[in-house]
Amino acid sequence: MKIFPIGGLNEIGKNMTVLEYKDQIMVIDCGMSFPEDEMFGIDVVIPDFTYLINNAKKIRGVVITHGHEDHIGGIPYLLKKINVPIYGTRLPLGLIRNKLDEHGIKGDLRPINAGDKFRLGDFKVEAIRTTHSIADSICLCIETPAARIFHTGDFKIDYTPIDGEPIDFAKLAELGRKGIDLMMADSTNVMRPGFTPSEQVVGQTLDGIFREAKNRIIIATFSSNVHRVQKIIELAVRYGRKFAVSGRSMENVVKLAVELGYLKFPAGSYVELNKTRNIPDSELVIITTGSQGEPMSALARMADDEHRNVKLKKGDMVILSSTPVPGNEKEVSNVVNKLSEKEVEVIYNEVADIHVSGHACQEDLKLIHSLIRPKFFMPVHGEHRHLVRHAKLAEELGMKKDNIFILSNGDQLTVDKRKAIQFKNVVSADDILVDGLGVGDVGNVVLRDRKMLSESGLIIIVAAIDRANGVVVSGPEIVSRGFVYVKEHEELIEAARKKALESIEANIRGGFKDWNTIKNGVRDDMRKFVFKSTRRSPIIMPIFLDI
Amino acid sequence: MKIFPIGGLNEIGKNMTVLEYKDQIMVIDCGMSFPEDEMFGIDVVIPDFTYLINNAKKIRGVVITHGHEDHIGGIPYLLKKINVPIYGTRLPLGLIRNKLDEHGIKGDLRPINAGDKFRLGDFKVEAIRTTHSIADSICLCIETPAARIFHTGDFKIDYTPIDGEPIDFAKLAELGRKGIDLMMADSTNVMRPGFTPSEQVVGQTLDGIFREAKNRIIIATFSSNVHRVQKIIELAVRYGRKFAVSGRSMENVVKLAVELGYLKFPAGSYVELNKTRNIPDSELVIITTGSQGEPMSALARMADDEHRNVKLKKGDMVILSSTPVPGNEKEVSNVVNKLSEKEVEVIYNEVADIHVSGHACQEDLKLIHSLIRPKFFMPVHGEHRHLVRHAKLAEELGMKKDNIFILSNGDQLTVDKRKAIQFKNVVSADDILVDGLGVGDVGNVVLRDRKMLSESGLIIIVAAIDRANGVVVSGPEIVSRGFVYVKEHEELIEAARKKALESIEANIRGGFKDWNTIKNGVRDDMRKFVFKSTRRSPIIMPIFLDI
Repeated sequence: MKIFPIGGLNEIGKNMTVLEYKDQIMVIDCGMSFPEDEMFGIDVVIPDFTYLINNAKKIRGVVITHGHEDHIGGIPYLLKKINVPIYGTRLPLGLIRNKLDEHGIKGDLRPINAGDKFRLGDFKVEAIRTTHSIADSICLCIETPAARIFHTGDFKIDYTPIDGEPIDFAKLAELGRKGIDLMMADSTNVMRPGFTPSEQVVGQTLDGIFREAKNRIIIATFSSNVHRVQKIIELAVRYGRKFAVSGRSMENVVKLAVELGYLKFPAGSYVELNKTRNIPDSELVIITTGSQGEPMSALARMADDEHRNVKLKKGDMVILSSTPVPGNEKEVSNVVNKLSEKEVEVIYNEVADIHVSGHACQEDLKLIHSLIRPKFFMPVHGEHRHLVRHAKLAEELGMKKDNIFILSNGDQLTVDKRKAIQFKNVVSADDILVDGLGVGDVGNVVLRDRKMLSESGLIIIVAAIDRANGVVVSGPEIVSRGFVYVKEHEELIEAARKKALESIEANIRGGFKDWNTIKNGVRDDMRKFVFKSTRRSPIIMPIFLDI
Repeated sequence: MKIFPIGGLNEIGKNMTVLEYKDQIMVIDCGMSFPEDEMFGIDVVIPDFTYLINNAKKIRGVVITHGHEDHIGGIPYLLKKINVPIYGTRLPLGLIRNKLDEHGIKGDLRPINAGDKFRLGDFKVEAIRTTHSIADSICLCIETPAARIFHTGDFKIDYTPIDGEPIDFAKLAELGRKGIDLMMADSTNVMRPGFTPSEQVVGQTLDGIFREAKNRIIIATFSSNVHRVQKIIELAVRYGRKFAVSGRSMENVVKLAVELGYLKFPAGSYVELNKTRNIPDSELVIITTGSQGEPMSALARMADDEHRNVKLKKGDMVILSSTPVPGNEKEVSNVVNKLSEKEVEVIYNEVADIHVSGHACQEDLKLIHSLIRPKFFMPVHGEHRHLVRHAKLAEELGMKKDNIFILSNGDQLTVDKRKAIQFKNVVSADDILVDGLGVGDVGNVVLRDRKMLSESGLIIIVAAIDRANGVVVSGPEIVSRGFVYVKEHEELIEAARKKALESIEANIRGGFKDWNTIKNGVRDDMRKFVFKSTRRSPIIMPIFLDI
């Protein structure tokens, strides 16, 4: 049995794992990730589907562990390339359905339930209830004649989840007893000692806050965390408040979760956002997106006084029920600062226990390792430092170092009941960048140009040249963008124009040379001139018309 | 007495406070800050010196509390505009001297010592020993006939500093007894409960690590933290290792600190970095920059295998003795990941107590408030949320809300022994952006262009047009940068060229209109065409030559 991680290793995001047995393939998850800072203009990043496209006929199905973007976000892009059935529980399938509708894709979605056993060709798959920061999450046991494999998916250990459905520990213990050949386990929180607290903790903190609150409450959280949204609604009802919903993704998820029965509330407790004006502040909760400080989110628009229906005022209480995802720290504190300038009371992770993680900490991971007791182990879902730490944790629990495998995306692990062997760089697993309609068409050259343009802008030199007679017929014109504010620097631009003219004339005097010689000449001369005058290095683009 | 904060409020960085009494001005600190993400291409941000330039004759001097960039980084830019004396203790003056030399400025630097009392015109200034993450830090008491003011500078409370010189508590208690009219106090760590641990804690952790280490140790920390560097050197000596130094700022600061007597070590314990090859791994420590993951730093170059003298190898131990400054989290974890891919043992803040903060936490702040017991209070050095929290902390200690003033940069507080009054927006206090030689010449227009260029690049349409006869003589040529990789999209570019030609011809057919009409026409047509084909919005720049 061969395992190829295509995404999710040495990164947190775009999880995707390929399992191959004989001439059959099954896939676990198909996520996306958000662009890194230096990926200028990129909308999302998806896994490299090349291997799957080339082996489309072998694929029996994709099984989704839960509905977060880093596990489902790549599906529309995959289905545009190949048609394969997608298996998942009801909430993730509902979220995928919304995505496919946006992309105008039909898709073959096949619902399963936690506890189900089903076959994908020779793969016997068992979906097992687990707990995470989104409802309806599962982990997977996959069995072929070659090996029995366990994949945790994303998980935390929550003994008291909001929906009353904890991890199926009995099943995990049974699997451990039967014998698991390979475990793949979530490494996101492996740096954190101790245990991840239950989602109930957030409910208790919020209960205290709601009980004391006198004015309007605006609370931002992840739309996908329907358990938390349910808790917020229950607290609203308990303390005599109606609730409204703001932000596109919150509206969509709430609608879906109500349809599917994940969200329940008494008739009359919900109110449309545009009908909240007449409700007294002490009787209203607005549930919104934007807990990560996303600049276009509903909460950011409120903080900027640009929200159509919600105008913040002194005395409002705004709760960010979240912790900044690494990389979002600045955005979150920007929003908090803007809110506090409005004399709004802001409650966020630095002042109250307003969020718990959805991922297992060290002691939780030890429990899973001890229940499953796998023969071989591959840490997944983490940056390299997380994978290394998770491997060390397994060693500390007594696993042999030789039985632990740290892979990179694109590597292969061949595993059976007796041995496991790692091969490097077997399938292509690059980051595929999506920019608008373009999938993979923005590469290093374009990104490097965008970076250079962002740092110093550009200067364009345009001239019409009579090649036969070696004269400049028109121009040079100097046009710049992102370099200096031209109106205030006319002298500099005029000096640059003179410099460019001299350079061109020097290069065509005494007979026309090829265009490249002239272009390189003016580019070099301008670069030196500009750097000397400004210590900046804009892109210099000579464009000549041959008259 | 009038106080104008010019920088350091609603931000962490570029601290600068102006004090004015009658026709005299003194200034506390003159810092810089690093650009925010959206400040594309900006090198540093400095305070707005307009008020000082306009009132240069009144200025009696600038007093520096300590040598961090956010307190001294603006000085070269200030001295290029006006010549004023700079007062400071020896280490900050040494660091300022290095800066001024780089800028080719002489400057009038006047050394003071902690404990000194001196006069700047009518301002009676007393420099008081405090503790912070850089040696030779002071806080200030400033007295005029109108009011007595206390400014904490940046500080922590360290009862056991490495240099054996704790805060002068007796003096603070004496000031409290005499009566302080206004206190300005550091708010950086006001969100954190409890106490800030002593720098000694880091020494103890490092001692344990050094004692067990078998191989080469590479340790990154802030070059300005000469106490920590001293401790690292002492540990190296204790465990039979020589030390070398890597990274320009580390080399400069170590050189300066040795000259000034802040760093001491036995002869023979220092070794030049390019002479470390023959030293056994177990006998070497390399002290380096790059603890914040800075992409061009010595540590980042080691992680990228691009360091001239240090090639990392399996078994090396790399210690990042720091905590990521907010905004640098991603850079730090990138470096940690690269290091761990090299099978180097990496020790950083998530795995050991390898750093302590230089700023006072809540309980420390309560002590200072309780010692000084000011009549009026202005929280400084913090984002808005920090200032609000610090104001609340003062209230919790019993201060009247009306006696606490949250200002913004550019506001004025007028204070005397009886009352304090706040005025909004009295002096200009914008962020002044420095890009290369340009100070303040990159404004919103240029930044917006750089942002747009970074997101989708640009398309340039060049044509020579015979205006009199209404014909396109040459072109249009289509040139793009940062849009698509042209070699792979020749069809798209050719289609765009045809579209542009059609558009221009449609606009000059039947008689030449003005250039703007033609340009706007082709810009609109191209924008629609490009968006429809790619869902991207590059900047479209038509440039026409009149033939």
